[in-house]
Amino acid sequence: MTGTRQRIIDASATLMRRQGYEATGMKEIVTAASAPFGSVYHFFPGGKEQLGAETIRWSGAEYAKLLAAALDSSPDLAGGVRAFFDGAAEYLVATGYADACPIATIALEVSSHSEVLRQACAEVFEMWANDGARRLEAGGVPAGAARRLAVEMLALLEGAFVLCRAARDTEALRVAADAALASLAAALAPGPGAAAPAPPGSRQEER
Amino acid sequence: MTGTRQRIIDASATLMRRQGYEATGMKEIVTAASAPFGSVYHFFPGGKEQLGAETIRWSGAEYAKLLAAALDSSPDLAGGVRAFFDGAAEYLVATGYADACPIATIALEVSSHSEVLRQACAEVFEMWANDGARRLEAGGVPAGAARRLAVEMLALLEGAFVLCRAARDTEALRVAADAALASLAAALAPGPGAAAPAPPGSRQEER
Repeated sequence: MTGTRQRIIDASATLMRRQGYEATGMKEIVTAASAPFGSVYHFFPGGKEQLGAETIRWSGAEYAKLLAAALDSSPDLAGGVRAFFDGAAEYLVATGYADACPIATIALEVSSHSEVLRQACAEVFEMWANDGARRLEAGGVPAGAARRLAVEMLALLEGAFVLCRAARDTEALRVAADAALASLAAALAPGPGAAAPAPPGSRQEER
Repeated sequence: MTGTRQRIIDASATLMRRQGYEATGMKEIVTAASAPFGSVYHFFPGGKEQLGAETIRWSGAEYAKLLAAALDSSPDLAGGVRAFFDGAAEYLVATGYADACPIATIALEVSSHSEVLRQACAEVFEMWANDGARRLEAGGVPAGAARRLAVEMLALLEGAFVLCRAARDTEALRVAADAALASLAAALAPGPGAAAPAPPGSRQEER
């Protein structure tokens, strides 16, 4: 049986993913976790902010496993990327457009007023970008293009989640998946265009 | 001098953009608007939800003007898109990474528990996608590709905002701008690739 501490993090993760950090109360979390109210301050003496930061890091690590599973399930990189976006769209529909990115709502809410929570979100996004870049490079994307492509795919995914949740429609995720695959194909193409050259007027050379 | 009703919407827009809907209280809004507390219920008898919906629509229309201004300021489409992303990055930095999309935070917070607010967000995103598609088509993007490209650019922008606010860094906006411009160049290229063909395994044909 899952220990009380982990049950509190599980409940916090589910609630904060759907409704964000601000709307989620400690009472609601302990009720959902079937835990005594006092236990939350026993395990998380820093209160809601500490629980929020641990929730962000735990959710981020769990979500990274989904990405790894999608990529491992496919013989090639393009199939893995397609499987990940398809899986995200299916899960979104299955949950009534409630469960998209586990940390994006919190990231937008708290970035301007909690350094503890902002940094936890930033660490998770950075881990995902690093994981993605490593997998892209292992799949044949040139080293110089892998980080850029990983960040592009992550932006497409996060932006599509915002649009899909508001519209209750998966159009943006389908468009994002196709855009991600087109960029991947360009990055994998042999020849002078191999590194998905930046367009005219690009700022990439400044980085 | 701006009327009380508009001052309340202005204050609500600034606060909700930075900290979201849940963390913004009616008292905080009327204080920021230098308005008597009772006036908010006089002008918005539906309370916070009505004010939130009007804030979303007003902010959405204002933001659409920024897009139009960026595109009008440039002799070509690519320059206009670059100007818009550059302007967004500059404003983000100038506001200490506080002011990104005026409605994304609210969209993620409320999509699962307020139909009134979710629909207001969906209408604004739809207006932006339509405006963008119309401008892209006027600039030479084939009709069949314009909607898809507009949604892709919007997803890139919204996703980059999430990542940039968390990281306090503009990398994701630079990557998103370059990706948007590469997709625009592909859509504008003459020949068989003109309509930015969907990659192998694409789902576009189902739409």
